[in-house]
Amino acid sequence: MPGDFIGVGVGPGDPELITLKAARYIQNADVISYIASGNGRSQAKVIAGAVLKDAVANQREIPVVMPMCEDRSIANKVYDEAAEQIQQALNEDKTVVFLCEGDPLFFGSFSYLLERIQENNPCQVVPGISSVNAAASALQLPLTILKESFVVVSGRHTEEKLCEALLQHDSVVIMKAGRSRQKIVNALKQSNRLADANYLEYIGRENEVIYQDVDQLPDESGPYFSLFVVLRNERDQS
Amino acid sequence: MPGDFIGVGVGPGDPELITLKAARYIQNADVISYIASGNGRSQAKVIAGAVLKDAVANQREIPVVMPMCEDRSIANKVYDEAAEQIQQALNEDKTVVFLCEGDPLFFGSFSYLLERIQENNPCQVVPGISSVNAAASALQLPLTILKESFVVVSGRHTEEKLCEALLQHDSVVIMKAGRSRQKIVNALKQSNRLADANYLEYIGRENEVIYQDVDQLPDESGPYFSLFVVLRNERDQS
Repeated sequence: MPGDFIGVGVGPGDPELITLKAARYIQNADVISYIASGNGRSQAKVIAGAVLKDAVANQREIPVVMPMCEDRSIANKVYDEAAEQIQQALNEDKTVVFLCEGDPLFFGSFSYLLERIQENNPCQVVPGISSVNAAASALQLPLTILKESFVVVSGRHTEEKLCEALLQHDSVVIMKAGRSRQKIVNALKQSNRLADANYLEYIGRENEVIYQDVDQLPDESGPYFSLFVVLRNERDQS
Repeated sequence: MPGDFIGVGVGPGDPELITLKAARYIQNADVISYIASGNGRSQAKVIAGAVLKDAVANQREIPVVMPMCEDRSIANKVYDEAAEQIQQALNEDKTVVFLCEGDPLFFGSFSYLLERIQENNPCQVVPGISSVNAAASALQLPLTILKESFVVVSGRHTEEKLCEALLQHDSVVIMKAGRSRQKIVNALKQSNRLADANYLEYIGRENEVIYQDVDQLPDESGPYFSLFVVLRNERDQS
């Protein structure tokens, strides 16, 4: 009987924004796995650091080293090999917990491992706090109220598509804003929503940056996980 | 010096989906406050039940009794009175923690209290797992990958507006589906997305209901917090 493959969200960065369930699963896992960069660094593992201090003895690790590149075929090869390693551990009846920044199924790498493993193994997913909810909390502004509509789009979309979202929806979160900052600012201006916009990076971490006046944002690239949160200044409360 | 007013998300229903931070704040609060129905019942307090067992001695409570009605003026009067009671506690230098189902700033009542209190008091918000992320985890299906766009709309919108969202976006979550079930099913048929749709209620609770074939859903109203999650069956992974 194979062990369980469990994706757990560790939240957006504040180590205390891990759920009780995620903490329990992480501490009792036979194997933990996570995405690591070329130098072996894993942000998800850093976030779970305090929880991991109380983990069971002899916990093994399967780091999934992902090179920084946009070639999907290379990424798919990495996922194939990782899925195989994880499958071996599951076949030995080990529980494998995969650590995910934010929420496992919201723009995360976990989805690609899950689709490779879920056909032949029992899986579980423990949701995590996404950066979207963490952003609203950091701003202390409602993400949505009453009949407002709320859309999440990738900053990688065209300026035209970003404008369309900004014109059609009350609340708009633009993820992965890193290298698209200028395009996003242009879309905000064109849709007349610059004053509604907030910018955030590294929410809840020591190097957190928040701009509530996006006009002050320097004209340069930001980190990959930076995001814009656009909320109506005047909200319809009827 | 006034105390802090702190909104904390307790997640969608599973008592273990409370964050470590929320648990700490709840246990150390001088006063806890929450929305209660006419009979005094509070779902948020039920979810936090196990955490509350280890709360400080002499913790006080401010229940905010909200009648079931759609008249905003009545709701606003309740919020006014609650804000006044909470303000009194804050003036006595007490920390008041407001328990919120799901995430505090995502379609929640907390927003209305926050806007009444934040001008004159230090406030904090601890994000919670929203039903949207919990739904994807329960389904074990990605909410969004790569360049997919993702929209959240209220089931109270017109069929036309629901159709528009279903036609324009890859992933669509329709909240507050309770009494709008038939309208939503019609919009799913009209936009040719019935096969993409999943239906969930009471996620992570004992009475959880999930339909992955929405065609089997009885033609009747559901609970207020039921939701539809519409995800492309064939996803663009390029």
